Amino acid sequence: MLPIVLHNYFRSSTSYRVRIALEMKDLSFTYVARHLRKGGQRAPEYLTLNPQGLVPTMIWPDGTVLNQSLAIIEFLEEIRPTPPLLPSDPFGRARVRSLAQMIACDLHPVNNLRVLDALRTRYNENEEGISDWFHGWTHATFTPMEHLLFQSPDTGRFCHGDQPSLADICLTAQVVNNERYEIDMTNYPIIKRIVAECLTLPAFINAHPDRQPDADLS
Amino acid sequence: MLPIVLHNYFRSSTSYRVRIALEMKDLSFTYVARHLRKGGQRAPEYLTLNPQGLVPTMIWPDGTVLNQSLAIIEFLEEIRPTPPLLPSDPFGRARVRSLAQMIACDLHPVNNLRVLDALRTRYNENEEGISDWFHGWTHATFTPMEHLLFQSPDTGRFCHGDQPSLADICLTAQVVNNERYEIDMTNYPIIKRIVAECLTLPAFINAHPDRQPDADLS
Repeated sequence: MLPIVLHNYFRSSTSYRVRIALEMKDLSFTYVARHLRKGGQRAPEYLTLNPQGLVPTMIWPDGTVLNQSLAIIEFLEEIRPTPPLLPSDPFGRARVRSLAQMIACDLHPVNNLRVLDALRTRYNENEEGISDWFHGWTHATFTPMEHLLFQSPDTGRFCHGDQPSLADICLTAQVVNNERYEIDMTNYPIIKRIVAECLTLPAFINAHPDRQPDADLS
Repeated sequence: MLPIVLHNYFRSSTSYRVRIALEMKDLSFTYVARHLRKGGQRAPEYLTLNPQGLVPTMIWPDGTVLNQSLAIIEFLEEIRPTPPLLPSDPFGRARVRSLAQMIACDLHPVNNLRVLDALRTRYNENEEGISDWFHGWTHATFTPMEHLLFQSPDTGRFCHGDQPSLADICLTAQVVNNERYEIDMTNYPIIKRIVAECLTLPAFINAHPDRQPDADLS
């Protein structure tokens, strides 16, 4: 059987999400780097796999091409249910998906590279302004997320109980991604605690951007 | 039993998604309008339900509060599986979720009201520039989506086969939302055909923005 192949980029938080899930599910994969700053996502042979020109793309051993990080993770959850990345009850699953989507649908999309580049191009935005944009949207999601985590009896060692879930994957990938913008986390003690807890787990450590073959830490 | 309550806004495409799903699942609900242009989403009593200040929010009859449109729809799918909004096989489910997330994670978030308002405030962007931003991101997602629909043997009357799914819900809500920016759909014959097909179905018609109690068609 062919290996699973993951086209991704060390620093991309959506790539980091899928790497964590693959690690948690104990699925080995071949790493193909697509350097977003050098246009690797727009290479013609990659666009046949992912016509959006976005990472990640996962190639299943049977040749099926899967795009979109959350769709990939739900797929992995379905074909390899253990350890679970979603709770077993519908209300818990809705809560975990909702927390994950606060990151995936409200925060990450407006702070990702192609949007920041659009601000630079359209508005001649300087790096101070980019940082201000990035900070603003981060706080717009983290403030209500901290509140939701604080008020729910379902919050435990992780976002939902004492096992890491899809919500922790999205949250940790985002917080790690935020590091280059030095977000002040003082007002987010629960988020901070949960991410620190996640970053002690082998799956989150092995999948960390700094550990990837294309990591450029300069 | 109390009714399901949906806090939403007629013109919000994420609200339209959930309304379609509720209609398809034949679940009646009480409509509470949150007027986004008049700050209804920031009313104190609403922020206790949805501290993000976003729509929609669904209150289940047992009092459970559910946020995030896709998490809500997956919940509805789990508690009322018929008619299905996702295919039964994991690869098909991944494909449908991926198409849905192209809209929900890549397109809608950068074109929604709060981002357009941020461009107006930060950059003094005029309505011509707003329209240009909106068009640019729409084409950036619709071009690869049309390609993916064209090349897949799974595409049928709808995005995936001959039954409407989560992908059709997200796509139709987005296309209807796009109407005020007069997107040229010439290059998207499959998207156009699928959305036209969806808009013949009672669930999509009943949930349409123009049919809602808060519809302001002026």
